[in-house]
Parts: sequence; C-alpha cells; structure tokens
Amino acid sequence: MRVNGTPFRTIWLAEDGAQVEVIDQTALPDRFEVQSIATVEQMATAIRTMVVRGAPLIGVAGAYGLALAMREDPSDARLEAAHAALFETRPTAVNLRWALDRVRAALAPASPTERASLAYRLAAEIAEEDVAACAKIGEHGAALLRAEWERRGRPDPFHVLTHCNAGWLATVDWGTALAPVYRLFDEGVPVHVWVDETRPRNQGALTYWELSQHGVPCTFIADNAGGLLMLRGQVHACIVGSDRTTRTGDVCNKIGTYLKALAARDAEIPFYVALPASTLDLTLRDGSSIPIEERAASEVTMRPGVRAANPAFDVTPARLVTKIITERGVCDASEGAIVALHGG
Amino acid sequence: MRVNGTPFRTIWLAEDGAQVEVIDQTALPDRFEVQSIATVEQMATAIRTMVVRGAPLIGVAGAYGLALAMREDPSDARLEAAHAALFETRPTAVNLRWALDRVRAALAPASPTERASLAYRLAAEIAEEDVAACAKIGEHGAALLRAEWERRGRPDPFHVLTHCNAGWLATVDWGTALAPVYRLFDEGVPVHVWVDETRPRNQGALTYWELSQHGVPCTFIADNAGGLLMLRGQVHACIVGSDRTTRTGDVCNKIGTYLKALAARDAEIPFYVALPASTLDLTLRDGSSIPIEERAASEVTMRPGVRAANPAFDVTPARLVTKIITERGVCDASEGAIVALHGG
Repeated sequence: MRVNGTPFRTIWLAEDGAQVEVIDQTALPDRFEVQSIATVEQMATAIRTMVVRGAPLIGVAGAYGLALAMREDPSDARLEAAHAALFETRPTAVNLRWALDRVRAALAPASPTERASLAYRLAAEIAEEDVAACAKIGEHGAALLRAEWERRGRPDPFHVLTHCNAGWLATVDWGTALAPVYRLFDEGVPVHVWVDETRPRNQGALTYWELSQHGVPCTFIADNAGGLLMLRGQVHACIVGSDRTTRTGDVCNKIGTYLKALAARDAEIPFYVALPASTLDLTLRDGSSIPIEERAASEVTMRPGVRAANPAFDVTPARLVTKIITERGVCDASEGAIVALHGG
Repeated sequence: MRVNGTPFRTIWLAEDGAQVEVIDQTALPDRFEVQSIATVEQMATAIRTMVVRGAPLIGVAGAYGLALAMREDPSDARLEAAHAALFETRPTAVNLRWALDRVRAALAPASPTERASLAYRLAAEIAEEDVAACAKIGEHGAALLRAEWERRGRPDPFHVLTHCNAGWLATVDWGTALAPVYRLFDEGVPVHVWVDETRPRNQGALTYWELSQHGVPCTFIADNAGGLLMLRGQVHACIVGSDRTTRTGDVCNKIGTYLKALAARDAEIPFYVALPASTLDLTLRDGSSIPIEERAASEVTMRPGVRAANPAFDVTPARLVTKIITERGVCDASEGAIVALHGG
C-alpha cells in the first residue's frame, strides 16, 4: 500500500538482487525507516526484535533468511543451522515454521550451486502467495462491506470499526482485516475507520499510521469508546483479523475483540472476521480450549509493585460473528459452512 | 479509609480549626501528599486543578472555601464574590453548585460576626452527610454482594470488577461503587477486585492505589481484558458508579462502562450500579438524551496530527443493570422501583 504517496510492501528484494529490505516496524509510527538485511543473522535479529512482525510477514522473512544463508554457504550444514536459528526467533509462530520447512524441503534435494537462487525464488513465491491471498480477502470482504453500505443507503462516510492491527504491516501487502477496507477505498466508497487504540500494546497506532499513509480517513479512539459509538449509530460494520479460528467459528484474536463483538450484536451491526485460511484450525471445536498467552504485567502498568494481569487474546464465540472472510470466499461462522468452503 | 494503616478522609479541618487539609490527588498514585489550604483563592485553585476531584468531594471543598472566605471578611460582598469564584472552578458540577447555594442561603440572614463559624459548621455537616450516605451505600451494597458470594458457594477469592474510580477519593470517605467492597472486606469476605485501567485518563490507577492502601487485594487490567475474565468465570460481580442515572434506570458513567455491562449479561454476572440519590435525574426518561462530554483528543493520543475522538461517558441501558444501590436501599433499574424508593 502507499506510504506518503509511494507504493510499498513490508519486505522486498534490494536492487542488488541479494540483500533484503524491510520496513522497520519498531520505528513506526514515529519514523518510517527501511532496513537493509544482508545476512541470515541480521534477519533472525529483525524477526526476534519485531522489526518485522505479523504471522504472514515473518514467514516470508524467514524464507528470505534461508536465501541469505545459502548465498554465503549453500552446504547442508549451513541450511540446517540457518533453519534452526530462524525458527528459534519466534518458536510459536505457525507461519514461520511452515515457510522454513517448505524452503528447506525444496532445497535439500537441490545441488548446492542452485540452492541460493532456488531459495530466493521460493521466498518471492511465498511473498506473492501471501499478497494474492490478502488481495482475495480484500476482494471478498469489500463485496460484503459494499453490500452493507448499499443496504444502509450509501452513507457518507461509511463507518467501519477495527481492533488491533490486521493491516498490510502484518502481511506483505493489503493485510487481512484491512484489505477489504483498502479495496473499498480504492473503489471510491467513502469509508472512514474508527481505530481502537488496542491497549496494552497500542497496535492501533500502526493501524492509524498505515490507513493514514494510504489516505484512508480514520479516527483514533480509546478501546472504551466503541460501544457508545455503536449505540449512537456511528458504526456501520466491524471488521477484525484472527490469530486462530476453530472449525466451529470461534475466533481467537487480540484481547478486547470479544467486547466489540458483543456491542456489535447489541447494536445490530455486522461483525466480520477476515483471516487467511492457514489460520483456521480445523482440528479444534471449542474456542475456550485455546490457550491464552499471558504477557508481562509491565505492558499494562509502568509502576513497579502494581499487580497486573495481561491476557493477550480473547475468544469471540461464533454466535457473535456475522461472516468469516478468507481468500476462498465468505461463509457463516459455523462448522458446516467453514468446512464446506475450506475442506477438512 | 486507610492509607498505609492510618485512617484518612479526603478533606478535613486542620488542627488550628481554620485551615482545611486535603489529599493532593494530582500527586497520586505516585506520592501521598497533604495540602493545607488557608484561603478561598487557594481552595478555588485546588478545585480547578483537580487537587480535589469527584462530585461529592468538590461540593464539600466548595463549602469549606466559603468558610475560609468568611474568616477573612464576613461581608455580603465577600460572600457573593467567594460564591462566584468557587462556582466558576467547575461550572458543570451539580454538587458544587448545590453545596455553595446551601451555605450561602444559610449565611445570608446571619449576622457577619456569626458567619464564619456557621460556614465551618455547615461545611462539616455536608461532609458528614456525604460520609453517612456513602456508608449507607456500602451497607446496602455489601448485603447484595454478600448474597451473591453465598449463592456462589462462598468462593475464595470473590472476584469483583470495577471501572473508573468511584472510591473514597471521589467522596469524603467510603466512596460509592467501592463502599460495598470496603464494607465486605472489613467484614472478612475474601474479596478481590479487578481494576479496569480506564483509558484514556487512567482513573484505575487511583482505584488500585486506594484499594491497595486499605489492604483490599486487587489486580490492574487493561480495559480490554474484562470480557475474557467474565467468560472464563473469573468475575463474580461487577460494580460501578454513575454520574447521572435516569428515572428509567439508564446509567451514564465513564466511557467503557457499557461494554462491561454487555459482557456481564453475556456471562450471566450481576451488574450493580452504586450512586448517591442526588445523582438520580428523575426528570429524564431516556439515557440516550444525556449529552456526552467530548474531551480533548490529546487525552487519547500524545502524537500531534493524529485525529482522535474522546467521548468521556457512555450510557448503559437499564436492561443491562441488575440492581441500583443508593443510600436509600437497593432497587431494580426500572422507573417503578426507582420512583418507589426515591420519590418523584
């Protein structure tokens, strides 16, 4: 998407065809900086320190990390060591594991002289697949939002509320929850986004930054404000991403998502969840069995000695979800509909 | 209530019988400091700069302000000027107006030589009335909480969630929403409080401070976390205060209250609202007609150039309120029950 008028992705191959360039997300939203990454060690550091973040993006970053390693030394030993070093940066990230395994499996039977170019090609392929999936989510989701906009009599502005950052910064381009918003905006629908601050880590600041840079009108709000806005009729639709969605349509996402889903139902506003099909967990039936990461108290309070709890995610029951949007299409948040569209 | 083991009120007459001492709430929760106030000008500044805050407390502070003025000069002109100066500090505060008018009306017919002592007596009376009302709210609310604790099989801990600060710091002593919690704690029930941070102004820090100082176990959480905690069964009851409650039981309170009320209903947890009867607005039928103060964007975001919305209150519809607690007793959030208990 655009940054100050210029189209950008979060990660790309440098002009020399060897180094990898990324947007440094630790500097956002204060400063827009591009970081050049020349070695696998630098890439591992970039992933660990969240210079790159977001599940789809770190998968691509990992794949490029293997390419950088192969460029230096295409031996079997180096391949194994690089895979291990990259995987250890974010061990719970499903996409990272998947991307690293995919590249390693393709490189293993190849001759060392071909490995570097093959790895670069695969990394680019994974990036393009991610862009294509997000673009498809954008297409399907925009049709849904447009239908709601038309059903409402084409309000100007058409108010969409989102929580956390499920935008292009978390992917290679387009994003998940924000892909339909960008698409709608590019099609000329007068969309305006209410951006939840998303305490305690304030990912809303990233969402506000990326929407503003692309030119999408948006307003930053405290997480507490969304309910009032919905009751007042100042929200026409909610759209969020998901870290993990069950076979039955229970949606695990950033803490606070559930409260917005409750308010949307109370105000009879559609609550959409946009996600790559790769984050569907078809083995899981009950969202309440998803383990919730408890993060450091210091994220919530800067005061020493204050006891704080900091669950990072919550689970929105399927009954509160109006539609699920993936690259395959749109479906109800029910086992029958999810399985029919995604197999399994 | 207790501060580091010693009982305190938020405002009291100094040992010299002339100056007024207050807890400086602008220094909390970082530092506990007592400020001595010797003149009406100093009192006006203390109210304006929120050294004292909370509707019941600033009413008492205003009354003492008139006493300080009468001590210097008990003339009619001085009385009028002091009334005007104090009223202008927080012109929308209903309690301040009410307290100032009450003291002025009593002083007007009195001879100048009696005015100072009469004003001190009235200010002390208003303070005692506030303490008595809050103590009654505590008594009625504690019975309600205790019944819920027993119905649940006396869980240890008994988890109560609150939003914003409706504690003793906002009153002279006891508080409104927290009065039942203190009472329950003093009676030996193993209560534990989940304290909402309450963005954007973080009044939860005051709530955490005052509960901790009194010895009540509590845990600070982001406003986003309460829904998950309720779904998981980690909250047994919610209790909040109110700035204004309609004849029909719609409750205007700090922004974000409504989201917690929705979650409480979804998890079948009682949602109690504790308030002084003076904040009931029996002339109002529909909460959605209450004007909502829109505060500065800078409270939400420190970044210049970021567009933010900052509504300070929301209205929780009566259908989500389990019981209303006032100094008169406990009633349903319905017109019939409210009017039966409070007249009008």
